[in-house]
Amino acid sequence: MQRYFIDLPYTGDSYELAGEVFHHIVRVMRMEPGEEVYLVFPDQMAIIAKITEIKSETVVLVEVAKEEQAKELPIFVTIASGYPKGDKLEWIVQKGTELGAAAFMGFPARASVVKWDAKKLGKKQQRLEKIAQEAAEQSQRQRTPKIQLLGQFSELVAALPEYDRILIAYEESAKAGEMAHLAQVLTDVQPGERILAVFGPEGGIMPAEIETLVAAGGILCGLGPRILRTETAPLYLLSAASYQLELAKE
Amino acid sequence: MQRYFIDLPYTGDSYELAGEVFHHIVRVMRMEPGEEVYLVFPDQMAIIAKITEIKSETVVLVEVAKEEQAKELPIFVTIASGYPKGDKLEWIVQKGTELGAAAFMGFPARASVVKWDAKKLGKKQQRLEKIAQEAAEQSQRQRTPKIQLLGQFSELVAALPEYDRILIAYEESAKAGEMAHLAQVLTDVQPGERILAVFGPEGGIMPAEIETLVAAGGILCGLGPRILRTETAPLYLLSAASYQLELAKE
Repeated sequence: MQRYFIDLPYTGDSYELAGEVFHHIVRVMRMEPGEEVYLVFPDQMAIIAKITEIKSETVVLVEVAKEEQAKELPIFVTIASGYPKGDKLEWIVQKGTELGAAAFMGFPARASVVKWDAKKLGKKQQRLEKIAQEAAEQSQRQRTPKIQLLGQFSELVAALPEYDRILIAYEESAKAGEMAHLAQVLTDVQPGERILAVFGPEGGIMPAEIETLVAAGGILCGLGPRILRTETAPLYLLSAASYQLELAKE
Repeated sequence: MQRYFIDLPYTGDSYELAGEVFHHIVRVMRMEPGEEVYLVFPDQMAIIAKITEIKSETVVLVEVAKEEQAKELPIFVTIASGYPKGDKLEWIVQKGTELGAAAFMGFPARASVVKWDAKKLGKKQQRLEKIAQEAAEQSQRQRTPKIQLLGQFSELVAALPEYDRILIAYEESAKAGEMAHLAQVLTDVQPGERILAVFGPEGGIMPAEIETLVAAGGILCGLGPRILRTETAPLYLLSAASYQLELAKE
């Protein structure tokens, strides 16, 4: 069933939708009165709504039922990636959205090969926002992840205090056999906590960057004994979080 | 440090390598006596070896130490994917290899859009084997996953008795809120067990296919409350297995 994120407050009454959503429902999907869609409100409330009337530029719907199942991770995980090459960031955002990330951040790591100016970052941000929206709708989530592309590493550092916990996926920790920290964190987190998970680009995170993040309270984590690529590691972490907090929960 | 899978038995003596491995060590990496590489033997034994001599067409190495850390999942997970579109199977093999899969199978599902004849399957299998090998080396694994591309769904069915457990990632189970089976299996498995995990193509697995797999002992599993794409779902399962069996282990 089609799913639309809408920008109106949840009232419990009827909803008259215009613009892109109207266009998609009426012109693209050619839906008719009586048919149903999911509507998702800004505060993550999601309902099943039935079309009652189609006007020339708006469509009117009423709530049929709430969407029952909680679709979101109980914690808010922001994936922060040192800018990787090519279109890997698109891949991270798409798959990371399917896997439940609350937000994505990109930052220029010392080892990042790509250098994007403010104009390029602006364009890339728009593209990534579109990818996140489409992936959130397809995976039937109740929120669309936010995207922030930073111009300097110092902006990442400045944002650290906003988080309850900071995890650093560090290849050297994995090689040294660090296997305990991720599970400790995931069994200790409380619902509603904001977690920042930092991943290096292809060249890895540099020692100076590690020092800064650890000094701000960051915890070095191994993600299992196999070395994961820059675009795979965030998916491992999100899957582990889902498994621990949604499936295995003890 | 470079890593080479070699086809000689582990003897504990010196090893004289020729062919592609010789070419890569001597011509591509331009290594010299005294330098070290990882050598991985067919039975997964892995050592650190030092170059003692470079001849015109061979290179001689001796063992310096065993590779200590176990790099492989304690269970053997085969990922069986209903043929997906485009190059998604390449992604599944690459990322699935990083994440520890023991083997990959492709099969023609009813909902598979692509139809490949024996010749195409042969070519694709070669390509996938190369991808698996390269990914295994980069992620520092001790074995290269095997690839099998099947011509008929019945071949998959015929292979089912070889496995200790069969998991079916079923979207309808996730939508219905099935959240218990994967964790039950992962907390119950014993080291050395052979697990087959079956994933549908973009169109999903058909009820008739589900019936056949369940009749053979397959267990329907949800992979969390968010719907995952055909190429993401196997990565979730492998990450969950690694998290439970390598990190969280209780």
